Amino acid sequence: MTGGNPASAQSPVQADAGQPRVRLAAVGLGRWARVMARAYAGSGVLELRSCFSRNPERRRSFAADFGCGEDESLEAVLGRADIDGIVITAPNDQHAPLIEAAASAGKHVYTEKPVAVDLADLRRIRCAVRESGIVFACGHSARRLSGLRAMKHVLDSGDAGRPSMVEAVFGNERGLELKEGDWRADPVQAPGGPLTQLGIHQIDNLQYLLGPARRAVAMGRAPRPGIANHLAVGVLLEFDQSLGYLGCNWLSPGCFTIDMYCSAARFRYELDFSWWSRSAETDAHTGLTRTVISADSSDPDSRVLAADAVPLAPRDHLREEIEEFAGAIRGTAQVEVGLTEALANVAVLQAAARSLAGARPVDVAEIINEIEES
Amino acid sequence: MTGGNPASAQSPVQADAGQPRVRLAAVGLGRWARVMARAYAGSGVLELRSCFSRNPERRRSFAADFGCGEDESLEAVLGRADIDGIVITAPNDQHAPLIEAAASAGKHVYTEKPVAVDLADLRRIRCAVRESGIVFACGHSARRLSGLRAMKHVLDSGDAGRPSMVEAVFGNERGLELKEGDWRADPVQAPGGPLTQLGIHQIDNLQYLLGPARRAVAMGRAPRPGIANHLAVGVLLEFDQSLGYLGCNWLSPGCFTIDMYCSAARFRYELDFSWWSRSAETDAHTGLTRTVISADSSDPDSRVLAADAVPLAPRDHLREEIEEFAGAIRGTAQVEVGLTEALANVAVLQAAARSLAGARPVDVAEIINEIEES
Repeated sequence: MTGGNPASAQSPVQADAGQPRVRLAAVGLGRWARVMARAYAGSGVLELRSCFSRNPERRRSFAADFGCGEDESLEAVLGRADIDGIVITAPNDQHAPLIEAAASAGKHVYTEKPVAVDLADLRRIRCAVRESGIVFACGHSARRLSGLRAMKHVLDSGDAGRPSMVEAVFGNERGLELKEGDWRADPVQAPGGPLTQLGIHQIDNLQYLLGPARRAVAMGRAPRPGIANHLAVGVLLEFDQSLGYLGCNWLSPGCFTIDMYCSAARFRYELDFSWWSRSAETDAHTGLTRTVISADSSDPDSRVLAADAVPLAPRDHLREEIEEFAGAIRGTAQVEVGLTEALANVAVLQAAARSLAGARPVDVAEIINEIEES
Repeated sequence: MTGGNPASAQSPVQADAGQPRVRLAAVGLGRWARVMARAYAGSGVLELRSCFSRNPERRRSFAADFGCGEDESLEAVLGRADIDGIVITAPNDQHAPLIEAAASAGKHVYTEKPVAVDLADLRRIRCAVRESGIVFACGHSARRLSGLRAMKHVLDSGDAGRPSMVEAVFGNERGLELKEGDWRADPVQAPGGPLTQLGIHQIDNLQYLLGPARRAVAMGRAPRPGIANHLAVGVLLEFDQSLGYLGCNWLSPGCFTIDMYCSAARFRYELDFSWWSRSAETDAHTGLTRTVISADSSDPDSRVLAADAVPLAPRDHLREEIEEFAGAIRGTAQVEVGLTEALANVAVLQAAARSLAGARPVDVAEIINEIEES
C-alpha cells in the first residue's frame, strides 16, 4: 500500500487567455451565496456578472461586496444576453421554479444541495433539465475534499483491500436554540432535520465511495417535546458489497467524520468544522489516519496495530466545482455531479425519511421510480 | 465543565489480612481463560485453586503455567469443599449446563459474555441463578475501562449537557480467513457474527451510558458468497432520550471506538486494540478527546471548535471485575453486572439479530418477555 494521494492541488479547469470567462449571476443571496462568491472570486475561468434577490438591501450589499451588477427581477437576469448561467443558493423549495425559468431561458444552472426535497419538485427539475439540454451541476462539493479523493483512490486501487463498512457523520449545534417557526423544526421543509441539510453531503460521499445505496433504514429523535422534527438521525444503508452508516445531528458541536473499514486497513477522516465555510482552507484543517496490522502473528493477541497520517494536498472544493461547471459550459470539462447523481442522492435521503416516518426499511428504487414516473 | 475523571486507579475491593482469599476454579481453558488468569494472578482477594477442561493436555499446561491444581471432571471441581466459585470461559453454548451444575452445587459463578445466546439457555440460566441464590457475575468489563467511567461521569454530572447520540464500534480481522466449520460463519452459534462476540461489549457500554435500549434495527453483510453469516453488522438503537449506533465487523484491523454527542461537547474514545488482552495496560493505550465550541458567535461560520484530551487514570478492568465478584462472595461488594444486566444485553443482541433476519425493527421488550416466559 503506497498511501500516495492522487489529489492534485490544481483546479481541473485552467484559465485560457484565448477564451473569454464564463459569465454567471448569483440567485438567492443568503449566507451561502457569500461563501460561494468568496470561493470563486478571482477565478480566471468565470466571472460574477450580476446578482438577484427579492430583497433590494441584500442585493445592493452583495453587489458592492463582490463587485458585480445587480438585477431587479429574475426575468431581468435571465433575459440578459451577457449571462451564461446562474448559481442558485436559494431555499430548497424555490429550486424547481428557478431551474425551470433558467432552463426556459437557455441559462445553465449550478444549484446548491439538495437539488430539491419534494418529489414533485424533483420531477419538474428532471424534465426541465433534460428537455432544455442545459449544463446542470449540483453542489456536492464535499467529495472534492482532498481526504475524500484519497479515500476513493484507496478503494479504486485496491491498496487496502475490500471495504466492508463506511460510517459518515455530520453534525452541528444549529438546532440547539430553535425559534418559533424555524424551518429546521419543520419535517416537511427539512425531512429528518439535519439529514436534509447535512446528511445529504455524506449521502453523496457514501455513494461516491461505495456506489449506489440500495436500501435505507433510519431512526430519529426529537430533542424535546413540542419539536415535531427529528434533530438527531441515524441511517443504515445497504450497498451491493458493503454497509454504510450515516449519523447526523443539530444538537452537538460541529463534526464531520468518515470511518472506512477495509480488509487490509481502516481509515478515519476528520474535518475541523470551524473551517467548513472557508473552502480554500478546509483541507489544511483535515486529517486522514490509516491503521494497519503492522506486526502479524498466528496468535491473535500478539498482532500489533500502527497508525499513520495519509498526506493530503490542499484543494479548494467549492472553487473546483464552480470552475468545472464553467468549463462544462465552455465545453472543455464534464460535470461530475449532474442531474443523475443529484437525484440519486435525494432518493436516498427520501428513502431514509420515509423509513423514519414508517419504521421500516425502504428500497431506494421505490423513490427513484416515483421521481421517474412523470 | 471540569473534565475531571472520577476513575480511581484503585480496585474497589481491598485485600484484608484478616480474611481468607476467595477460592476459584477456572472452567474452560481456551485463550481467554489465560487472559483472565493473568489479570487476577497475584490478587490478594482471591486465589486460583483449580482448573478444568475436558482436554487433559490443556488442563496440565494451564495448571503448570498458573500454579493451580487441576480436576479431571466438572463434578470433581464442583464437589470440592475448598472451591467457592468458578470462572467460566467455555464456549457460549456450554454456559447454561455449566451454570446449572454450579448452582446445584452451591458454587458461585462468573461467566464470560455473552451470558448465553440461545433464548432457551437464557431461561435455564435465569432459573438456576434465581433459585439457587448464588453470586452471579457476567464479564462485561469494558464499562470499567477508564474512558467509559469518564464518559459515564460526564453524563451523570450533566457537565456536557444532554446526549443526543452515541456511536460504538468494535471490529477486528478474525473473519478474514474463515476455515471450513469455523463457528464464526455459523449464524446459529454466532447470530450476526461479530455482533455476538464483539458487539455485546458495546451493547453493555451503550446501556451503561444511556439506559435501556428500547428498539433495534439492523443491517448486515456477508463478506462473500458461500458465507452464511453476516460479518459486518450495523445496528440502530432507540433509547428513551437518545439514539445509539453499533457497528461491528470481523473484516478489518482491530478497532474499538465510542463517539458521544452531547449538547455542550462531543467526545471520542479510542482504544488501541493491540492491548485488548492485557487488561492492566489497556487504559494506558486509550484516549478520550473532548471537542467544544471554544469561541461562540452569532455568525455560525465564525464559531471555533477546540479539542483537548480528558485525563484518564489507568485501571485494570478485568482484575477489578473478578475481585468484585470475589468481594460479593465474601459479602463485602456488590456485583455491578449481574443476571439482570447480562440478560438485558443479550435481549438487545437478539433483537438486533432478529431484525437482521426479518428486516424490521424489533422491540427489545419482545425478547425480554420471551426470556421471562418460563
